[in-house]
Amino acid sequence: METEISTIGEFGLIDRVTSGLTAGNPSTVKSVGDDAAVLSYPDTDVLVSSDMLLEGVHFDLTYVPLKHLGYKAAVVNFSDIYAMNGTPRQITVSLGISKRFTVEHIDELYSGIRLACEIYGVDLVGGDTTSSRSGLVISITCIGDVAKGEAVGRDGAHDTDLICVSGDLGAAYMGLQLLEREKTASAGMKDFVPRFEGKEYLVERQLKPEARKDIVARLAEAGIRPTSMIDVSDGLSSELLHICHASKTGCRVYEDRIPIDYQTAVMAEELNMNLVTAALNGGEDYELLFTVPLHCHEQIKKIDGVKVIGHITSENLGCALVTRDGTEMPLRAQGFNHLNQ
Amino acid sequence: METEISTIGEFGLIDRVTSGLTAGNPSTVKSVGDDAAVLSYPDTDVLVSSDMLLEGVHFDLTYVPLKHLGYKAAVVNFSDIYAMNGTPRQITVSLGISKRFTVEHIDELYSGIRLACEIYGVDLVGGDTTSSRSGLVISITCIGDVAKGEAVGRDGAHDTDLICVSGDLGAAYMGLQLLEREKTASAGMKDFVPRFEGKEYLVERQLKPEARKDIVARLAEAGIRPTSMIDVSDGLSSELLHICHASKTGCRVYEDRIPIDYQTAVMAEELNMNLVTAALNGGEDYELLFTVPLHCHEQIKKIDGVKVIGHITSENLGCALVTRDGTEMPLRAQGFNHLNQ
Repeated sequence: METEISTIGEFGLIDRVTSGLTAGNPSTVKSVGDDAAVLSYPDTDVLVSSDMLLEGVHFDLTYVPLKHLGYKAAVVNFSDIYAMNGTPRQITVSLGISKRFTVEHIDELYSGIRLACEIYGVDLVGGDTTSSRSGLVISITCIGDVAKGEAVGRDGAHDTDLICVSGDLGAAYMGLQLLEREKTASAGMKDFVPRFEGKEYLVERQLKPEARKDIVARLAEAGIRPTSMIDVSDGLSSELLHICHASKTGCRVYEDRIPIDYQTAVMAEELNMNLVTAALNGGEDYELLFTVPLHCHEQIKKIDGVKVIGHITSENLGCALVTRDGTEMPLRAQGFNHLNQ
Repeated sequence: METEISTIGEFGLIDRVTSGLTAGNPSTVKSVGDDAAVLSYPDTDVLVSSDMLLEGVHFDLTYVPLKHLGYKAAVVNFSDIYAMNGTPRQITVSLGISKRFTVEHIDELYSGIRLACEIYGVDLVGGDTTSSRSGLVISITCIGDVAKGEAVGRDGAHDTDLICVSGDLGAAYMGLQLLEREKTASAGMKDFVPRFEGKEYLVERQLKPEARKDIVARLAEAGIRPTSMIDVSDGLSSELLHICHASKTGCRVYEDRIPIDYQTAVMAEELNMNLVTAALNGGEDYELLFTVPLHCHEQIKKIDGVKVIGHITSENLGCALVTRDGTEMPLRAQGFNHLNQ
């Protein structure tokens, strides 16, 4: 089925993609269908975060299925809210759509957005739909809540705090390398079958990242409130520098502590890339990077999926990676910088 | 001065455009510089609205100065919040920027956004900045507040309610026609001076629209709560049909009551266009269209800048324009539909 969007028009498309939406959060008073959504946040602080994804810059539809793209676009916004120690509650979705997209394409994209909303308990409450001259544009704003005064920013790290990270790093970046390699290999070939065996984890990390809702919950259960927190979207180095800059501190991170999955290591070997560079600078992992007071060491060790990778220092000591042989290398932000591409 | 954006990078650009921002609203707890902004709305309902503007679809930089564009992009979002009977408090701004834009261009754009924020008392609290392969993309989300339960949607109009509109209609559309005409006339000519004498109002309505904050305030002062309200972004016909559809009513609007400025009429004459069609279907006026109970008639008449243009009927009577000779013409949404362009 291929239905041109012009046959149903802007309002028809909006009706279609928002039909049957139900609002599950008590804070959602009025959802789609008016000039603005109405929300109620009487006893909490409200968190707001926005992200824009552009075709050809942030995603390549030759290997990213639209449903996955929708899922990822929503999840990366949820991740920003979790990284503030909050819970995402609502999103608005603004789309710019070029003529090559059909109604069915947009249905696919929304099915991914809706799936993410369902899994994370978030309500889709509004947005905008318009035509684009070139490619797909997705702009999502996420609204969430956090107990009054409990938001965790980037600016609260202190000397001697432990630096912790969830999950593992570099896999999403290696997944991107793999997808790019297979895209190149498939050029001009009919019925090309990409080779992903033994590397499924990398592909999944790139195409279907998850936000670490579980980590925020486990920290709360353990009674640990991080002193600072950020999600790893641009790469560990870049995010650490953000925390240290905002907190006016330095840091030491130990190369041998950086969590890296086996598949990531194999792929780096195959591509003849430096594994630590990939783990430090590869973006889109959407893991949580946070600092906790030193006295939380024993408690943190008990939390599954969290690793202590270093510690905060005074500002004058700068930010450095300590390599396996004890050498200190200055940390630099070489993460994805979409403006320098 | 022309500074390439790559020389200062994404984070340098964000620092630059957000430097010196101060948050004036008590509800703004934490502004730019983290994963999310932190807001506090303890005693009110929260309103959220998003809009996306794309170069070549919504604006043409050959005749729209970047500062005006920034101002307009912000104001049209404020307008959505006023149209819910609320007050805009915060915005997030996400930009997609192609290589032909310099740091100074983005400064210009932001100077317009900041000016709008200053005039309307809105805090710029976050957003995203990324590169675009083609043209400028602006996505703004506006957050505002309204006293609990006092939000006015599109769905509350009742049979016999009076239909009111602020200001005048069709001028922004005529301004666009004028700008397009002068653009065509200037093609290939050096030192071309566009002719706007006697039509300044039209150009201003197109390039620098205002949101009707004053009308919302006057209605509140007069103790009038509209039963339904919407801002005129796509044209009077389209917006009236939204209200009637959402409220399950019909309507009668009188041709001779539609407020039209003298310059709009002159321009329609010059271009040999039907004036009423322009006023009914020309978009981007950002006036407020609202309904009030019949018993408010005397009070409404006293409010400067508001005109009663018709009344709501039962649904089975349909939606119609009553022409000067008493003929009923069905209303149709022929407004701007950016998906059908």
